[in-house]
Amino acid sequence: MTQSLQPLAHAIRFLAIDAIVQAGEGHPGVPLGMAEIATALYTQHLRHHPADPLWPDRDRVVLSNGHGSMLLYALLHLSGYERISLDQIKAFRQLGAHTAGHPEIDPAAGIELTTGLLGQGIANALGMAVAEAALNARFGPGLVDHFTWAFVGDGCLQEGIGQEAIALAGHLRLGKLVFLWDDNRITDDGSTELAISESVPERFRVAQWHVQEVDGHDIAAVSAAIAEARRDPRPSLIACRTVIARGIERLQGQRGGHSARLFDADAVRAREQLGWPQVPFEVPAPVLQSWRDAAARSRPAYEAWHARLAALPAGERAEFERVQRGELPALWRERLLAHKRHALAADAGSDAAGATRSGIFLSSDIQQQLDDLLPERIVLCPDLEAPTGHKRGVAAFTAADRSGSYLHCGVREHVMGAMANGMAAHGGVRPLAVTYLAFSDYERPALRMAALMRLPVTFVFSHDSIGIGSNGPTHQPVEVLASLRAMPDMLVMRPADIVEAAECWEIALEHRAGPVSLVFARQPLPRVRMPASLAAADGNPCRRGAYVLAEAGSGARQVTLLATGSEVALALAARGQLEAGGVPTAVVSMPCWALFDAQDEAYREQVLGPGTARVGIEAAVRFGWDRWLGARGGFVGMPGFGASGPADALYRHFGLTAEAIAAEARRLLPAPLHRHPPERAPA
Amino acid sequence: MTQSLQPLAHAIRFLAIDAIVQAGEGHPGVPLGMAEIATALYTQHLRHHPADPLWPDRDRVVLSNGHGSMLLYALLHLSGYERISLDQIKAFRQLGAHTAGHPEIDPAAGIELTTGLLGQGIANALGMAVAEAALNARFGPGLVDHFTWAFVGDGCLQEGIGQEAIALAGHLRLGKLVFLWDDNRITDDGSTELAISESVPERFRVAQWHVQEVDGHDIAAVSAAIAEARRDPRPSLIACRTVIARGIERLQGQRGGHSARLFDADAVRAREQLGWPQVPFEVPAPVLQSWRDAAARSRPAYEAWHARLAALPAGERAEFERVQRGELPALWRERLLAHKRHALAADAGSDAAGATRSGIFLSSDIQQQLDDLLPERIVLCPDLEAPTGHKRGVAAFTAADRSGSYLHCGVREHVMGAMANGMAAHGGVRPLAVTYLAFSDYERPALRMAALMRLPVTFVFSHDSIGIGSNGPTHQPVEVLASLRAMPDMLVMRPADIVEAAECWEIALEHRAGPVSLVFARQPLPRVRMPASLAAADGNPCRRGAYVLAEAGSGARQVTLLATGSEVALALAARGQLEAGGVPTAVVSMPCWALFDAQDEAYREQVLGPGTARVGIEAAVRFGWDRWLGARGGFVGMPGFGASGPADALYRHFGLTAEAIAAEARRLLPAPLHRHPPERAPA
Repeated sequence: MTQSLQPLAHAIRFLAIDAIVQAGEGHPGVPLGMAEIATALYTQHLRHHPADPLWPDRDRVVLSNGHGSMLLYALLHLSGYERISLDQIKAFRQLGAHTAGHPEIDPAAGIELTTGLLGQGIANALGMAVAEAALNARFGPGLVDHFTWAFVGDGCLQEGIGQEAIALAGHLRLGKLVFLWDDNRITDDGSTELAISESVPERFRVAQWHVQEVDGHDIAAVSAAIAEARRDPRPSLIACRTVIARGIERLQGQRGGHSARLFDADAVRAREQLGWPQVPFEVPAPVLQSWRDAAARSRPAYEAWHARLAALPAGERAEFERVQRGELPALWRERLLAHKRHALAADAGSDAAGATRSGIFLSSDIQQQLDDLLPERIVLCPDLEAPTGHKRGVAAFTAADRSGSYLHCGVREHVMGAMANGMAAHGGVRPLAVTYLAFSDYERPALRMAALMRLPVTFVFSHDSIGIGSNGPTHQPVEVLASLRAMPDMLVMRPADIVEAAECWEIALEHRAGPVSLVFARQPLPRVRMPASLAAADGNPCRRGAYVLAEAGSGARQVTLLATGSEVALALAARGQLEAGGVPTAVVSMPCWALFDAQDEAYREQVLGPGTARVGIEAAVRFGWDRWLGARGGFVGMPGFGASGPADALYRHFGLTAEAIAAEARRLLPAPLHRHPPERAPA
Repeated sequence: MTQSLQPLAHAIRFLAIDAIVQAGEGHPGVPLGMAEIATALYTQHLRHHPADPLWPDRDRVVLSNGHGSMLLYALLHLSGYERISLDQIKAFRQLGAHTAGHPEIDPAAGIELTTGLLGQGIANALGMAVAEAALNARFGPGLVDHFTWAFVGDGCLQEGIGQEAIALAGHLRLGKLVFLWDDNRITDDGSTELAISESVPERFRVAQWHVQEVDGHDIAAVSAAIAEARRDPRPSLIACRTVIARGIERLQGQRGGHSARLFDADAVRAREQLGWPQVPFEVPAPVLQSWRDAAARSRPAYEAWHARLAALPAGERAEFERVQRGELPALWRERLLAHKRHALAADAGSDAAGATRSGIFLSSDIQQQLDDLLPERIVLCPDLEAPTGHKRGVAAFTAADRSGSYLHCGVREHVMGAMANGMAAHGGVRPLAVTYLAFSDYERPALRMAALMRLPVTFVFSHDSIGIGSNGPTHQPVEVLASLRAMPDMLVMRPADIVEAAECWEIALEHRAGPVSLVFARQPLPRVRMPASLAAADGNPCRRGAYVLAEAGSGARQVTLLATGSEVALALAARGQLEAGGVPTAVVSMPCWALFDAQDEAYREQVLGPGTARVGIEAAVRFGWDRWLGARGGFVGMPGFGASGPADALYRHFGLTAEAIAAEARRLLPAPLHRHPPERAPA
């Protein structure tokens, strides 16, 4: 029977060849080299329903070697995914097509993830397998019981993130995760021997994976290996020995097979050699029918699944559907509001006002309030449980117990971030990745992918400045806020106190259009929002990104102090000094620049105070602040990297003091007899 | 004999305890757990000369688990490094001390590297071992023949960068690289079993390392293993089974041993139990003498080395000393100038003017010009040899041939960047790390460490925008320029054409005070500097960071277009349209913001054109540009992430056209009857 599947593989091969010839560029290596592997998976094992690409219990497929995107598009087209029509195949790599150079997330088209930065995909797949295991434990195998398959190239496995994923997947014993490795012994530079001398299968075996080695062009052998992989309780690597760009005579098995341009003559020659007489883009009707029949294999499972869902008790079904939609449960906002009211009612010097409590624990306190309400939450953390405090009342997710909702990632930030992305893309769970802000660079490619995919992942960062003290400049982010704010579609929030922490969490929990980075200090964040303040009511001024925390008290505003996070308290102290000296001064808290940027100009002007002397205050570099300060604005912050020493000594050393802020403001005030003309707020 | 070394180990242990007690924080786990290991290394194997910490042929020691900094400080103090006095030990973690919370690079004090972001140190050590091997091949073992030792914790090995380092070091068979692993089975969260199930020694064996397992508290056993490691031609892992925080009864072997605070009572109890009657910070005179005697072991080798250096032919010695000092050779500037003059003399449409040549190849052309002049250069690249083109006339550095100067890193950007840092810190070589700009995030922690250490590493980035075309948004950096510019002490340069490429390389080659990021397009960068331009002479206007490339031609300047890299040509085209429409317009090329920022205000004002309508143009996000544009400035760039499509279609789609730039400028021009007041340049 598998002999008869060869034409199905060739259908992939020639769609890829024709699309790449037509586009004038593309990467033939993967689709031509993995056509048989993909055929074995899709025709004999994969559980999916192309008519309903969003079926929650579908198998997940990740093309981690995303440059081979035509493999995925050909599979989706042949399987009958409506959005990947033949016209889309013909529009490969054209602006506006679903068939982009690298896969771009579109689950309704069957594209589970954006991939192409090597190693990300397999780490995403690991996250999907975690999500599956957690949901399987929570809702039972009747509702959640599927595999996650990843097509994997050499690059994915050489990358550090890939190595982190291998180690962690083996540790977690995620038996429904299977990697199909395109063992073609070629990378862009040439032979893999240029850069690796280790046995990849052995490396997986050390990591406690189930490993098989097969001929990747033997559909029956691959299929048998997949069957075995499904049975084994460990995650599985199937090392498929392949010939890169198989079918293109001048490129196959060669370095150029990776991404060399294909020409009409290549396509003609391949047709002759492989016996494929069809014109470009034509799939023989019987072959197409075989593909559609293969896709129909899952129909009974699909219908049985829906019958089970329909038969569930209403409450259980509603809960399953709630988490699938990513909706919040009843009462979540009430909990946050109660927390906020409690904080506002507390004495200023008490821990309920954050006065002595580590800033990051203001976040974990809130999460603890939600423990019982958000069973779909999974917290990931790279070996910083104690200093970040987000475990509290929940248990660990382990190889032995999938019911836990805290995942010890080991000292592996990068895979953590990418797993969170995979979990969010999977759905049904709510990932929250916690680490120090200085370590965010380690997972930055994953942060970027979260933003690019607009995935609802919450990244929580602690230890956000020189306030960490004597661990020194390696651990003191000074440029990270700027680098995160520069990232499109990443909402960056730095709350100033316990009240803003609750308000920013309210925003983060509701925000589904992309990732959020919530940034907290290590040092205490005493309450700056006062019970009597205008903004103290049940509204959430953080929604506007920035707001006047304290208006000028002694006359028309002359100075506007703009600050975030731990520096808002400093700004208030400076305001006190300035007001005492007869300078009417407002303090603006700016927890989220992007939300402020989205306000109308009138609001922004009112907050920024046209014509006032503006001073930005942040224990970080100035980069980016000019947006709000204008050409004449002042800034009190970090001149560069930090230093090792006690936090209070560092704040003084770097001039982050109320006195310095007040002095900077006074420096900017116009001399009595000539005033600057009013300056307009940024358009 | 080794029995008698135990007091030497205890001297480390108690200096660490006393310093950590006094500082009120610190990480006792490593210095207490690795005291015996360090004693074995320093007293019986290490080749160093504390009186001359900069001896070029010294063994290098890297404390990759940098949180254990007191281990290093104790070793340096006991060995007699002058800068690490007892007062410095007592000032542990205080502002201004050499004894920072994590080691901060100071080779004259014996601190080879800044470490503490886990995994960086071992990758740095790999770079040092590469530098040693390359210099050994070039200058012979008489001048360069030393080991590189790294103290390594579990975190370093769990991190992806650590895994990349293991794979690459084994592949390169760097036999003089030895890792001393603190196998204490504890990380911050608790047992290592929380996050890893693989055998670390097996993982190293798969990677072709020589592996031994010993009792880390048995000095003789560790010493014997080190001796064996020295003999083996492979890189060596010595897995040293240890008890974390050994000597502190309530913490040893416990999770708290990693970083719990120590108190006076802990120190008292440890003194009782280990028989160490001395008062805090007192080292018994015989023990100190033993340490100094141990350090003196290398003196004959040190003197013999100097004798060999002195006996060298003058030219050979001068060349060795030149590369040690990091100086450039004769004629390098002449070569660059000749290249620039050639480019300026070429017809505008020719390849010698960059008209059709990929931007990144303008960089590789320059490097090729320097091939024979810069034998100390080592180019690192993560599997992008063909598209980045920096191999050209040089051979690969391999396990079999250390004379090559191009290192195939595999698909491993992170270890590449950190290796470059280690090579620069080692000295004698000039590392150059090349990859796509979108992949820079993968090595960002290493970029940051280069900046923090102010190491002279050149990072070359290609494929810098949507100009890469249909590979799509994963491969299109839009926020990376901003995130690099936000990093202190990182010089970011984006040359506009072949002439600026030569000028920026001139600056980069001379810049020794920190790293440089040179950013190039994939698409051609046709020459924008014209032979007749004022800036066409042998001066280098890029030194000022930004300069007027084309002044307004039809009257007093009304518009200033500010652009970088590939967008300078667009700005010139827009200028043509504006001038034709009667709007006097200047174009400013801004290859390096940081250098421009360092100019005096008068120059900046002259360039920016006070009172003119300013438009920034860059195929990237606006973030950071407000610094130059002022509150009323316009911007033509990317609204967010890119898309997949042909490059020219993308430029049109995102409105990066001369027409759009001209329209933006016209929008900003004052209505005829009321003009804005002049705006001052940023202070």
